[in-house]
Amino acid sequence: MSVASSRTANPVSDVTFAAWSRERQQRIESVLERVLPAGAGPAARLAAAMRYATLGGGKRVRPLLAFAAAQVSRASDARVALAAAAVELIHAYSLVHDDLPCMDDDVLRRGKPTVHVEYDEATALLVGDALQSLAFQILSQPDFIENAKVQVEMVHLLAAAAGSRGMAGGQQIDLEATGRTREQRPELSELEFMHIHKTGALIRAAVLLGAACGEPLAASERAALDRYARAVGLAFQVVDDVLDAEASTATLGKTAGKDEKQGKPTYVTALGRAAARELAEELRAEAHAALAPLGSRAGRLGSLADFIVLRKF
Amino acid sequence: MSVASSRTANPVSDVTFAAWSRERQQRIESVLERVLPAGAGPAARLAAAMRYATLGGGKRVRPLLAFAAAQVSRASDARVALAAAAVELIHAYSLVHDDLPCMDDDVLRRGKPTVHVEYDEATALLVGDALQSLAFQILSQPDFIENAKVQVEMVHLLAAAAGSRGMAGGQQIDLEATGRTREQRPELSELEFMHIHKTGALIRAAVLLGAACGEPLAASERAALDRYARAVGLAFQVVDDVLDAEASTATLGKTAGKDEKQGKPTYVTALGRAAARELAEELRAEAHAALAPLGSRAGRLGSLADFIVLRKF
Repeated sequence: MSVASSRTANPVSDVTFAAWSRERQQRIESVLERVLPAGAGPAARLAAAMRYATLGGGKRVRPLLAFAAAQVSRASDARVALAAAAVELIHAYSLVHDDLPCMDDDVLRRGKPTVHVEYDEATALLVGDALQSLAFQILSQPDFIENAKVQVEMVHLLAAAAGSRGMAGGQQIDLEATGRTREQRPELSELEFMHIHKTGALIRAAVLLGAACGEPLAASERAALDRYARAVGLAFQVVDDVLDAEASTATLGKTAGKDEKQGKPTYVTALGRAAARELAEELRAEAHAALAPLGSRAGRLGSLADFIVLRKF
Repeated sequence: MSVASSRTANPVSDVTFAAWSRERQQRIESVLERVLPAGAGPAARLAAAMRYATLGGGKRVRPLLAFAAAQVSRASDARVALAAAAVELIHAYSLVHDDLPCMDDDVLRRGKPTVHVEYDEATALLVGDALQSLAFQILSQPDFIENAKVQVEMVHLLAAAAGSRGMAGGQQIDLEATGRTREQRPELSELEFMHIHKTGALIRAAVLLGAACGEPLAASERAALDRYARAVGLAFQVVDDVLDAEASTATLGKTAGKDEKQGKPTYVTALGRAAARELAEELRAEAHAALAPLGSRAGRLGSLADFIVLRKF
């Protein structure tokens, strides 16, 4: 599929892309199944809650990005799967902690009661903590990558993306911006800064970790992936904000309309729905433009940019 | 200092050991100062809270164990400092999360208000999350260890020690054992199992990570360190339980008498104070016996076993 055609195609109706995604989603599911602790032994409740939080749900956008980026560096799916699973574990932990009463206080996630509702708050806290540890445990698994130096760099990249200068820092900025009056709400540039950290850092990590599993890339190729990741990361958040305002709870599998109720600053509150949709389209075009120098190896990344912007849930 | 003399000496009155500890505590403090995010920028509140949670307090027992174990493999203090700081960051994160209302609900730690009291619950949650990420970020710092394979193993060791089969798993077992009636309380063997995970796993990681910074050790030497770590890990917890029952809040810098009030199973509730003290002495002897084959290189580890058992806070 050429980059040009992938821009116009709707990935939802693209059989090849759909089949490719489904196969990789299943692969991730089976890797997660394998690496998550079994629900037996003295900490059985923790293990069961970790599985509940992680398995059988979600679009697995970050793993798909890792698999797609791996095609750029010609890495095997088998190798990428572990890196993709590590990113998904960080994402899963962040959802469990975000849903806690002291954060977003949400009761529904991926169509099921959130972890603290199904289990209890203390267990949900430990689930998030242990999922984060597990991400680093599997990324540092012996013999996952022959070049241990690359493996160390991958751990470093994921840790930085998750930490105070990445995802956790973005969450903090979000916390402080929530509940302000309309006049106090952050400017668009601040909103962008927040999301580059909150959502963008981990999406970037997914792309770069996927690419790191294969042949070494030129600096210009890495820069292209970085530009792409920045654009799809923001696009993902813009579309999330639009869907939160437009879609139903049943479609989303999580509580809809939450942003407005909580007084959260979003692209919809900052721009209105129509302009937010336009921005998402611009970011999709930016993502495709970033991929152009990478040629056909970046085809799946292009389809994923389309999927991220055109998705309905 | 010979192993024999270190068994009888009181490390509190041992000038050499006291000076050695103080110097390393200062070194750890300055490494933590350097690696923690500065309290500026958009996530300034998170950065400040991370520093509040980590700096200027604590006995730094785990870093000291790492420095002492490094003498066995003849590693330089400069190198060990980073590994020691990584372990301390995991410990610091666990304290912040343990103190949250949904866990132990404590208001005092290291003589100061706990993080969720000084800041708020959501920030405390993020502080713990970001401290865990930071631990893996610094352990995977480029050029920390020339042998990247060893560095990957160190990350793996720390992640496993922190996770569901280590510290977090031990916390979960503790949660489930708390508040039971006297008849339902766990047996001594269950209590030991819980603490081998909750406290022991990270103490073992401190010892093994410190040793991993230097020359490769023989399997028998690693096994000796492992036996030592198991004994001091349990001894640490037994003494903690005794101090919680005996010492004042002012001495401990955290709320005393908390275990009994919360109906927590402890070595004191299981054995009584006198027998718990005896058990600590037995574990101290076990720790020294484990070190015997390592000779004088293990002198500091011996002093630390004494310090852990004889401490008053």
